[in-house]
Amino acid sequence: MAGEHHNHGITDARDHLRAHSDLVLPSVDPRSTPGYDGDKESGAADLIAGLAELSEFQERLFAAGQKGAQDSVLLVLQAMDSAGKGGIVRHVVGGVDPQGVELAAFKAPTEEELAHDFLWRVQKRVPRPGFIGVFDRSHYEDVLIGRVRELAEPDELERRYGAIVDFERRLVAQGTRVVKVMLHMSYEEQGERLMERLERPDKHWKFNSADVDERAIWPAYQYAYQEAIQRTSTDEAPWFVVPADRKWYARLAVQAILIETLEDIDPQWPRAEFDVEEQMARLRATM
Amino acid sequence: MAGEHHNHGITDARDHLRAHSDLVLPSVDPRSTPGYDGDKESGAADLIAGLAELSEFQERLFAAGQKGAQDSVLLVLQAMDSAGKGGIVRHVVGGVDPQGVELAAFKAPTEEELAHDFLWRVQKRVPRPGFIGVFDRSHYEDVLIGRVRELAEPDELERRYGAIVDFERRLVAQGTRVVKVMLHMSYEEQGERLMERLERPDKHWKFNSADVDERAIWPAYQYAYQEAIQRTSTDEAPWFVVPADRKWYARLAVQAILIETLEDIDPQWPRAEFDVEEQMARLRATM
Repeated sequence: MAGEHHNHGITDARDHLRAHSDLVLPSVDPRSTPGYDGDKESGAADLIAGLAELSEFQERLFAAGQKGAQDSVLLVLQAMDSAGKGGIVRHVVGGVDPQGVELAAFKAPTEEELAHDFLWRVQKRVPRPGFIGVFDRSHYEDVLIGRVRELAEPDELERRYGAIVDFERRLVAQGTRVVKVMLHMSYEEQGERLMERLERPDKHWKFNSADVDERAIWPAYQYAYQEAIQRTSTDEAPWFVVPADRKWYARLAVQAILIETLEDIDPQWPRAEFDVEEQMARLRATM
Repeated sequence: MAGEHHNHGITDARDHLRAHSDLVLPSVDPRSTPGYDGDKESGAADLIAGLAELSEFQERLFAAGQKGAQDSVLLVLQAMDSAGKGGIVRHVVGGVDPQGVELAAFKAPTEEELAHDFLWRVQKRVPRPGFIGVFDRSHYEDVLIGRVRELAEPDELERRYGAIVDFERRLVAQGTRVVKVMLHMSYEEQGERLMERLERPDKHWKFNSADVDERAIWPAYQYAYQEAIQRTSTDEAPWFVVPADRKWYARLAVQAILIETLEDIDPQWPRAEFDVEEQMARLRATM
């Protein structure tokens, strides 16, 4: 059960987790639980409590969007393999009405996608008004694997940082709150999670031998993340670095970030666009 | 709590609810609970119990689909306004991993959609292998409102019945289980639900004065549903008429239909496509 001191989950999660242009990624402890003094058990209870709150906000957001409000939320999830993106989608986003969620999972780009600018496929999947959009991987892959695997020249990477900031600024100006989360897992924890996938036959389908190859260049990825976050964390579209070695904490933290973002929007039930009494009378005549 | 007699939810739900070419819709009591002798309380408990089962099947289906299996499920939901389609999506489909669900809500067709054959927009939204697709309204609107509001000539309606049967047969041949559900609500119950929307300011956004207009021609819709179901309920793509005056029953019934459908597929965890020992050794070398 939730104790008295943390029955509201994490307070001011965004302040605790916000990453700025001076981020030093190794200074964030992947096992830490910023802003939360509860344990796994209380964390699970607080997650369930928060779900009701998130659900109500989501429904209001959707309702307002159906009646002309322009607000939406875009949650961008980035992380190394096995850091828990899927668990966030399942246990945080999965708690709200699927009718109000637009989920986009970006894989390696197709030939058609590669023929276009890197933002082309992403722009098509931004959430409509009233929706919570989730990017499971995103345009950030193009400055992460793009950099680490030298798929792009340094000049092109520079251009992309700028293009990303501009793109997200335009999104925000149109009414989309852009919230970017890096799930920050330790090298040791990833080793254990990948080993678990190998030990359990029902997890074999999630294992990819390329994950071990990428692991061999872990520091290059960490550096690419740090650089990408430094270059693209703006007041309009902030990055949050969420310690993710404890899955329960990461879920609670992303839930809290979403709830705080929706609190800012404060979506309201739309007023009736019809005369309620008149419609009641019409309806009564049919009963 | 679930009692001893119904702790597995509805047994053989599909047999109880299957509609054939001789369907007489008024013979189905919207308040009945075919195949279930529990009450609202046990129904809610059984729904939660079934969720775990449905979730596991869905994950297996998804995993198999990632590794080449062609199976998928398409749930088509049709009903009069306020019958509870949204609740099915929220409480039945919403219980499984959103990463394995493709939800398509079909509204009044756009100009572009109207310029194409009525199946054009629908074909684009069929589920990929491994996914559970849900159509919230569907191509059936084109033989329901299409018929009632005389948006199509009788010849064209005839053509559409045939085109639907052919289209669904092709889908099934490609590996998609097509499951069609009509939520069958009484006229009286709809009156109460629409009145509730008018009485609650947080429900006003769901109310549409056109719902009262459609209500005035309720029998025409019932007849159009009966005809559509008679003409398109095939062994490959059966219709189920689910009594829906009790929301808890309708949810339990649709969940049971989905579980039985997935039991037929019996998706298996894919075998590893790599040498497990070899990958373990590689991974260990990085730890």
